[in-house]
Amino acid sequence: MKNFIYKNPTEIIFGQGMIKELVTRVPADKPVLFLYGGGSIKKNGVYDQVRAALAGRNIIEFGGVEPNPQLGTCLKALDIVRRESVGFILAVGGGSVIDSGKFIAAAAYFQGKDPWEIILHKGANITKALPVGVVLTIPATGSENNGNAVISRRDTQEKLMFVSPHVYPRFAILDPAVTLTIPQKQVRNGIVDAFTHVLEQYITYPSSAPLQDRWAESLLQTLAEVGPVTLKDPANYEARATFMWSATLALNYLISVGVPQDWSTHRISVEITALYGLDHAETLAIVLFGVWEYKFKDKQAKLEQYGRNVWQANSAQDAIDRTEAFFRSLGMKTRFSEYKINAEEAGREIRARFTKRGVVFGEHGDITPEAAEKIILMRA
Amino acid sequence: MKNFIYKNPTEIIFGQGMIKELVTRVPADKPVLFLYGGGSIKKNGVYDQVRAALAGRNIIEFGGVEPNPQLGTCLKALDIVRRESVGFILAVGGGSVIDSGKFIAAAAYFQGKDPWEIILHKGANITKALPVGVVLTIPATGSENNGNAVISRRDTQEKLMFVSPHVYPRFAILDPAVTLTIPQKQVRNGIVDAFTHVLEQYITYPSSAPLQDRWAESLLQTLAEVGPVTLKDPANYEARATFMWSATLALNYLISVGVPQDWSTHRISVEITALYGLDHAETLAIVLFGVWEYKFKDKQAKLEQYGRNVWQANSAQDAIDRTEAFFRSLGMKTRFSEYKINAEEAGREIRARFTKRGVVFGEHGDITPEAAEKIILMRA
Repeated sequence: MKNFIYKNPTEIIFGQGMIKELVTRVPADKPVLFLYGGGSIKKNGVYDQVRAALAGRNIIEFGGVEPNPQLGTCLKALDIVRRESVGFILAVGGGSVIDSGKFIAAAAYFQGKDPWEIILHKGANITKALPVGVVLTIPATGSENNGNAVISRRDTQEKLMFVSPHVYPRFAILDPAVTLTIPQKQVRNGIVDAFTHVLEQYITYPSSAPLQDRWAESLLQTLAEVGPVTLKDPANYEARATFMWSATLALNYLISVGVPQDWSTHRISVEITALYGLDHAETLAIVLFGVWEYKFKDKQAKLEQYGRNVWQANSAQDAIDRTEAFFRSLGMKTRFSEYKINAEEAGREIRARFTKRGVVFGEHGDITPEAAEKIILMRA
Repeated sequence: MKNFIYKNPTEIIFGQGMIKELVTRVPADKPVLFLYGGGSIKKNGVYDQVRAALAGRNIIEFGGVEPNPQLGTCLKALDIVRRESVGFILAVGGGSVIDSGKFIAAAAYFQGKDPWEIILHKGANITKALPVGVVLTIPATGSENNGNAVISRRDTQEKLMFVSPHVYPRFAILDPAVTLTIPQKQVRNGIVDAFTHVLEQYITYPSSAPLQDRWAESLLQTLAEVGPVTLKDPANYEARATFMWSATLALNYLISVGVPQDWSTHRISVEITALYGLDHAETLAIVLFGVWEYKFKDKQAKLEQYGRNVWQANSAQDAIDRTEAFFRSLGMKTRFSEYKINAEEAGREIRARFTKRGVVFGEHGDITPEAAEKIILMRA
């Protein structure tokens, strides 16, 4: 096991009816920015529950945060934060709303000229942030319980992540009941996103960390089991609750302490979304299999272990095939051609971007810009 | 899944050579109480590492904290804390040293007349505590990553626990390398303690929480696998590291969110230690099997699941037998007669104590004082 430092101070408030706990968690003595997305919370009762819990408080609403939240939108919210002396950000939604909340929280104290520098420095220049609280409405990204945020900008077709210990949510309310009405597509996306998060912390090389391996396999087994159930039977509270809790634990980084990780799939995938607008999970379900094919030899031992323990598969290739079959069974496409995307064009553009940024990644540091292009071509 | 709230703010600093991280974690501007036990840290180099990391600081040493830490010892340390205006408590040792550190930290701000009231109110009257930091030297109790503390008093032969969110350690340094020289008996005790912690959060009744079940089973599988290895080959860093991390996760309460728990074994066991002085783990290894025999029907479904997934056992009774065989293979006794303790006398006294305190416990709230006596008699 490698040395590690792990701290996760977010208070998780889980279960039916728990949105009312906002009353003691949101400070009453300062203006609160109530951030949300496209307005689904006004249909499913979440908006009313939040408003009821915070009745009488100084609440400033800011709706309209889009999927793959845009810098421009965040900057508009930032203006309000500064003008109204906002002291707390309450993000009510899925990963996009939470991520934009984190960015606004960090930008509020940012001393430089252009808040985009936060992104360019990957969060390393954040020294302070407004406190953020979360009411989660879409299980998927794990953003409710980590220090990550991914922000996009339309003008440069970029989608980039920053990380900071200062933007961990103070609390995250997870009420599975309010997620029972989200569209099937978001459920499917959430399952694939969470499943891939676990895989990227697990499918590397053997590293004498049997507990981390077992906890990763437990998450994969549970998502494989409960995913199809919650997709077919959205009214099943227990299945949705298990899915919701699994998606949070899939990316609070507890399973990856002391072990190698490989975020190549995410790194390449976000570029596809930035260029072509596919949903985040849709890009993961394509790129993952390219990374595995390209790195087959290096990952073979872990793929065999994964196959054996999660799918009762009898080889690494069998494990890969079953994973792709699982994603397809959820209604996910796994090839660029299925979206009419030209893989050669995508590969060329993404290689150029990575070359310009000078990045390499992967658990062995060998996913060069050229390797990324090859991976993309493998999924034509 | 039941509703739950979970927060665990302790920073875990794990790995070889990590004691030096104290330099940035221990405040430099106030006197620090350096709490430790019987002096083994002076032989294994931990004392020197701590002193080196904190060179030039105002450090007040307090050694001699005993196993099953005594109220009297804590009160002596409390006098020093008050007299010297101590602002931080650094507990360097195993569960006993950490628990006494937590008690002293809470007592420092306690407004009542007698700090024992903290214990009598189970910690509910704690509103503030001095910050506590930990360097762990014995993997076992999990106290490094929770809000529990167990304090004993010789005059009344009591051993009682309190819990408070205010006494979670700010940080816990876990360096497996410094544990390689601890006595075999402490390793054995630690394995049984951690294993039992997991069982008490898991062997109740089925409750639609497959992820919590799998994470509990992962811990049990890992402890069953790595326990004998680390006992036979103490120099094996990887095995000790996995054991150490497993023992921490066995009682940071993450595996028990949203599920029923049954702490009957611990509740009865601490009374045995209070009365007869057996090591904590020695009492667990006796009482556990009485609880399971007494509650066999209620726990049968979970025992079968446990047996199947952890031991490849084919029945609940087989699961019980394999667990006892596992404990005995570590060198643990599992009957009162093996310690020449009169079970009738123990049962009578403990029934009287529970009756006087008016307590019942167990996942169905049916372990009455009379039931506790029966459980004890079953292990004569």
